[in-house]
Amino acid sequence: MDHDRITALGRSLPFYTWYARSPHLERAGQPGVIDLLFGNPHDLPLPEYVETLRRHAEPQDPSWYVYMLDHPPATEVVARDLAAHTSLPWRAEDVAMTTGGWGAIAIAMRMITEPGDEVIYYDPPWFFYDILVRGAEAVPVVLTLDPPRFSPDPQRLADAITPRTRAVLINTPHNPSGRILDAAELEAIAEVLRAASARIGRPIYLLSDEAYRLITLDRQRAPSPAEHYDHTLVLYSYGKQLLAPGNRIGYLAISPRIPDPEPLRQAAMLARFVNGFGFPNNILQRALPDYAHMCVDLDVLRLRRDRLIPVLADRGYDPTTPEGTFYIMARSPEPDDEAFVARMAAEDLFVLPGSTVAMPGWFRISLTASDAMIDAAIERFAKAPTPA
Amino acid sequence: MDHDRITALGRSLPFYTWYARSPHLERAGQPGVIDLLFGNPHDLPLPEYVETLRRHAEPQDPSWYVYMLDHPPATEVVARDLAAHTSLPWRAEDVAMTTGGWGAIAIAMRMITEPGDEVIYYDPPWFFYDILVRGAEAVPVVLTLDPPRFSPDPQRLADAITPRTRAVLINTPHNPSGRILDAAELEAIAEVLRAASARIGRPIYLLSDEAYRLITLDRQRAPSPAEHYDHTLVLYSYGKQLLAPGNRIGYLAISPRIPDPEPLRQAAMLARFVNGFGFPNNILQRALPDYAHMCVDLDVLRLRRDRLIPVLADRGYDPTTPEGTFYIMARSPEPDDEAFVARMAAEDLFVLPGSTVAMPGWFRISLTASDAMIDAAIERFAKAPTPA
Repeated sequence: MDHDRITALGRSLPFYTWYARSPHLERAGQPGVIDLLFGNPHDLPLPEYVETLRRHAEPQDPSWYVYMLDHPPATEVVARDLAAHTSLPWRAEDVAMTTGGWGAIAIAMRMITEPGDEVIYYDPPWFFYDILVRGAEAVPVVLTLDPPRFSPDPQRLADAITPRTRAVLINTPHNPSGRILDAAELEAIAEVLRAASARIGRPIYLLSDEAYRLITLDRQRAPSPAEHYDHTLVLYSYGKQLLAPGNRIGYLAISPRIPDPEPLRQAAMLARFVNGFGFPNNILQRALPDYAHMCVDLDVLRLRRDRLIPVLADRGYDPTTPEGTFYIMARSPEPDDEAFVARMAAEDLFVLPGSTVAMPGWFRISLTASDAMIDAAIERFAKAPTPA
Repeated sequence: MDHDRITALGRSLPFYTWYARSPHLERAGQPGVIDLLFGNPHDLPLPEYVETLRRHAEPQDPSWYVYMLDHPPATEVVARDLAAHTSLPWRAEDVAMTTGGWGAIAIAMRMITEPGDEVIYYDPPWFFYDILVRGAEAVPVVLTLDPPRFSPDPQRLADAITPRTRAVLINTPHNPSGRILDAAELEAIAEVLRAASARIGRPIYLLSDEAYRLITLDRQRAPSPAEHYDHTLVLYSYGKQLLAPGNRIGYLAISPRIPDPEPLRQAAMLARFVNGFGFPNNILQRALPDYAHMCVDLDVLRLRRDRLIPVLADRGYDPTTPEGTFYIMARSPEPDDEAFVARMAAEDLFVLPGSTVAMPGWFRISLTASDAMIDAAIERFAKAPTPA
């Protein structure tokens, strides 16, 4: 990377630029800090998850810590779970284990793009979509999801597709809006992609970031885009359901509806080689069958959501009501969301400025704070400024 | 990746192509198998290493499994160890933690090359050098190390450098020859690179793969190339000293002699973002200060080496005497090393064909087999064919 490239990639990370100057770096974890910034744990991890990690760290034979590519007991569990969720006939060979959802997105980019190919994604985005597209020498094309519904507009999508479009990256349940796309919305996207693929003469891939698939707040099911569109790659992270993002494991799964999966399987292997052994740690793969169905308490998250929203609404912050994910978006009482966030941070309440996720004038709250932090936040927000 | 690119990258992996058809995939770990194929463990891991992993898997506070970039207690230990080894003033900020040595090489390629830049490496290589150079859109330029000394020829290196040369990748202690480059050899390389950098008007980086730095078999010290050449990036893996390659942790360290390290530090951060969160798992980073000085028993490895060599020599296999690493190279008794290896594999003795590491007519033995396997191998080799 020469100087220009470092600058260009750095510019595609407004979140990281903001965070590098945030007092959160110094204050996180200190007594009295109300930390609603990231989807990071603020309660102890699930004891049964800790127990399974500790058990699988104990060698059961001399090869326990051996080099490991895809571990069949892990890929088999993933395939079974995807089949149960989507009613599609996933096979273990469709599954490429990765170092979390981030690793899955990174290898997807390398698997399917050539330099100059276009990848469409939506604002508000996950922090690192842009750098992952650019890092693979592909060209980001950015569409917008508008509040309050944050629903992709099929016509705008159709208009954005060119002969160089290689993929569309979507995220449902959606960080940060909390929207779960319904069957009609997914079918509308699928129709656009089928027509466009036929027109340009090669399949456009749907990259489906489903990191929050299990984080649904009203006991509903989040449908997978793979149920609607054949050329789908599902990207998943176990970091959300376990609220343990530092233990890096996830996967990329090739839809069983893709007619000739073999080149994609080869590409998934090569992409993980090229990216620096993008396979999850041995212990995390061995333990996966034991923790694959563990999940943080969704009722607790829902209760936090339902306690925060009235307070935020009362202040005139126009909060979203997330169907899934860990996040509430709310309008900043002043147009400069970074200034508002800095003012709150000065009093040790940390939230994310919307401008770091292409939503200037908004801020994001994470429900992964502890109950004590939520209590304190409610008290603090009740006295926070109202919009001018 | 289109079809051509998959094919091209696949062709740069003769090892992987060979291994995908090897009976080892089915037979490894079965009773009676003599497994001298990889640097993989065949004895239980160090109990104190297991204990430290299990201890650090136990959360000590709610943020235990949080997202983690570089963990200062880990980078501080690395900097201290490098300073002790090299007498150079390494700082924690010079250290970028990675998912093993593989991850370190992968980010080095992204950090310093632009598409079309040339990277020189040496045959016999580590299996994945070529794909890591090509995967970063750089161009591999391959020089050869000749037996019995496997010493880089300074004149050949000087002749291979062009204005597009961005880096030279060397490996000492060297897999598979076992050579440890001495101060004179390292100084000769440094002189060539200093002159060439001055000539082409930009620094050529020395990428120093030191994964086996601690695996020295006669209690000697393996000097680091960083002691001789300023523009050095040290690439390290904890997978060798702990013989636990499935627990992915290592680092890239920027020499403190590089005048302006800031752009490289930024590039190391961005490269890990682009490659799919190339930071090691949280638990492995937390535990590092406790296991950083643990190492497999080198006396045991030396004893295995010293027992195998006379048998191999007696058969006329002309074995190397490794100064470091886990490996002995020996000449195949027939010109087609893959045929010889297949014949041995049919009797459940697994060694690596030299043709997979650009040494046709040779085979490689790993000393990480168990003592029982070494005993059985000695018996087997004593009756193996002699060269025609």
